[in-house]
Amino acid sequence: MSALPKNNPYFSLGGKDIWSLINETAAAKEADSGEKVANLGQGFFSYSPPDFAIKAAQEAFTNPMDNQYAPSAGKPQLIEALKSHYSKKLGRELSNGEVVVTTGANEGMLAAFFGFISPGDEVIVFQPFFDQYISNIEMPGGKVVYVQLHPPADFDQRVVDGSDYTIDWDELERAISPRTKMIVLNTPHNPIGKIFTREELDKIGKLAVKHNFVILSDEVYENLYYSKEFPRIAASEDIEVQRRTLFVGSAGKTFAATGWRIGWLIGSKELIPYVKAAHTRICFSTPAPIQVAVSKAITIADSNGYYEQMRKQYEKKYSILQSVFDELELPYTKADGGYFLLVNLKSVKMPELKWPELIADKPRDFKLAYWLIQEFGVVSIPPSEFYLPENAAVMSDCLRFAVCKDDEVLEDAVRRLKALKKYL
Amino acid sequence: MSALPKNNPYFSLGGKDIWSLINETAAAKEADSGEKVANLGQGFFSYSPPDFAIKAAQEAFTNPMDNQYAPSAGKPQLIEALKSHYSKKLGRELSNGEVVVTTGANEGMLAAFFGFISPGDEVIVFQPFFDQYISNIEMPGGKVVYVQLHPPADFDQRVVDGSDYTIDWDELERAISPRTKMIVLNTPHNPIGKIFTREELDKIGKLAVKHNFVILSDEVYENLYYSKEFPRIAASEDIEVQRRTLFVGSAGKTFAATGWRIGWLIGSKELIPYVKAAHTRICFSTPAPIQVAVSKAITIADSNGYYEQMRKQYEKKYSILQSVFDELELPYTKADGGYFLLVNLKSVKMPELKWPELIADKPRDFKLAYWLIQEFGVVSIPPSEFYLPENAAVMSDCLRFAVCKDDEVLEDAVRRLKALKKYL
Repeated sequence: MSALPKNNPYFSLGGKDIWSLINETAAAKEADSGEKVANLGQGFFSYSPPDFAIKAAQEAFTNPMDNQYAPSAGKPQLIEALKSHYSKKLGRELSNGEVVVTTGANEGMLAAFFGFISPGDEVIVFQPFFDQYISNIEMPGGKVVYVQLHPPADFDQRVVDGSDYTIDWDELERAISPRTKMIVLNTPHNPIGKIFTREELDKIGKLAVKHNFVILSDEVYENLYYSKEFPRIAASEDIEVQRRTLFVGSAGKTFAATGWRIGWLIGSKELIPYVKAAHTRICFSTPAPIQVAVSKAITIADSNGYYEQMRKQYEKKYSILQSVFDELELPYTKADGGYFLLVNLKSVKMPELKWPELIADKPRDFKLAYWLIQEFGVVSIPPSEFYLPENAAVMSDCLRFAVCKDDEVLEDAVRRLKALKKYL
Repeated sequence: MSALPKNNPYFSLGGKDIWSLINETAAAKEADSGEKVANLGQGFFSYSPPDFAIKAAQEAFTNPMDNQYAPSAGKPQLIEALKSHYSKKLGRELSNGEVVVTTGANEGMLAAFFGFISPGDEVIVFQPFFDQYISNIEMPGGKVVYVQLHPPADFDQRVVDGSDYTIDWDELERAISPRTKMIVLNTPHNPIGKIFTREELDKIGKLAVKHNFVILSDEVYENLYYSKEFPRIAASEDIEVQRRTLFVGSAGKTFAATGWRIGWLIGSKELIPYVKAAHTRICFSTPAPIQVAVSKAITIADSNGYYEQMRKQYEKKYSILQSVFDELELPYTKADGGYFLLVNLKSVKMPELKWPELIADKPRDFKLAYWLIQEFGVVSIPPSEFYLPENAAVMSDCLRFAVCKDDEVLEDAVRRLKALKKYL
């Protein structure tokens, strides 16, 4: 057998990834125990999209032209629905040229990076980060420059708020160079649950204008906020900030439909055409019938109280899960928004096990996640995955739990986690 | 107003593209004349997917987990359906590792290029080419090397076959360099309609083994062939050819659903993992409910005579459209496969018009396409779009007509085109 052509080294296959290990460990636990684990790992929903969205999807397939190519920028009715929805949020009238529909928020961010990054350009990303950002910045040849979101010093001692995580402004300014082309925000933030404050957004906006870079704000959890309001950098009153801002939304996150893969970028009409050009080359266009479904779902949700009801449901979901950590006196970060709970397990006395090879040399959170599945049948995610190895120590006693699950699943997790008591 | 951050120069926005001009000219003609034009331009279907596929799509939305993330490699039931379908075609049992589902064939090809191309690597592409190939090769830094598909010298004098277009093997060998990483095939070919013969595929396979490059065969029109069989390079008996081969299929083309955006790559289990890794970074995963629908549609179509019936329908569609060119004695290329008809209009005496700026300096086929809309209300595509400017002369008297339209649309086009007679 001769050697095959070499792959692009960027896509060299490492060993098994942590997500696969977590999923396989969970599956093995289910097979062993004969009962389902409480899976609060990956951020998919354990329940269906709302009926009005499903009905809209089923209807869309009956119109012949809704089964054919959508325009690259998106189906006109979805663009209209998004304009109407966000014009209210931003307090100004959006035009068609400020919207592009993408095949999921992920592809939308990739299109934004391809629209602006030339090889060697730099992009500022806060740690912890969603892992796809990194490869998506590197694919067009970008270089990631990391800046920390600093947890309060005593976040392993007490319940803190997402807003207690802070930016060191000197550190951020030092990260800016003549090659800085973009900054990535994520608000509400995965996995911290922090919502960037208006003051923080204004400061970032000023830096973007001063140093002339693009702000790409990943706001896929925008409808899940538990504070009074959700500040948006695109709503900045500074026209120069507006001109440099793009934000990303997601039908999957909004309508409990992560498998639908409909996202969008909204923002400066001077920037959107480049995102659209890249999107056309990446996916050509986005599934047409699901776009039609989402256009109807957005319009219905804007008038039937869907978002308010969803926020209430999520406040309940958080209170179910937090109850067990309150009882165990394990400190966590109260989320300002999103659907993750970050819990600090420093005080848990975990026994030494025979660790799988993949995690033997990893920070403690990987072992905690593995042990929680094995011992309690509860699945979570080690947040070190959201850090460079050299910066991971700060979160190495934490685990991320997803609350976007049926209340019964959360209650089952609570029951199981009570057994942590004997390890305290 | 200050200058904004520069876009990636690769995505600089040129003027209006030809597709937009064609569509806008057609829309203006409809507004002027008060009747629909006969649109044989872009290759979307003027009719719906089969009922069994639509029903399967509507059902898929009722299962909660089919609305959530699919695995990156694809929904298990679609992978099974594809394995079963193609194992019969290839005459060998496919395994899971030889299949990856992508968000349309376009994203699948982009993922294959990202899987193997490092900056500076070369990819051989035949002219004429589908335009997305070029940007998709250039995005990971690849360099396109062009080789011609040579029409018969007298193709402007007589009706020829797709198979009469030939490869100059010396020219192809000269195009190969130590940096050649891939070759792109397209069979059945858009816009020629050529199906590569077994002999041609064997020769290309031998070159791929000798010079160690990957064969990426775009076979999205695989179910539309009008000869006895459709030879597949993946069915090569040479294991070394098999190891270097990937081919691409499309639910959109197969089920008249170009808006569904479900494609797949099938091929060497040594290559597929790199495509999957790139696909995971580009789109993360492909819409889950539509994958479930396609899995059912493939299984049903394999047993209800769908493909045979479709080929018969398309033979009829071609015969409807060809009748007018036979009558006018305008030579065309009889398609071996696909759904395009390439017609030579050299003998047509087109009047001089005031051309829109975008096409004033373009080859004659752009003007022919514009004039056919204005004068006859028939939309076609100028095939020079599928060439580098310096090579476009060969097709500059031709137009490409899509036959994937209702018979009534084709008959309307025939009626309208008869009026060409007075320009001969």
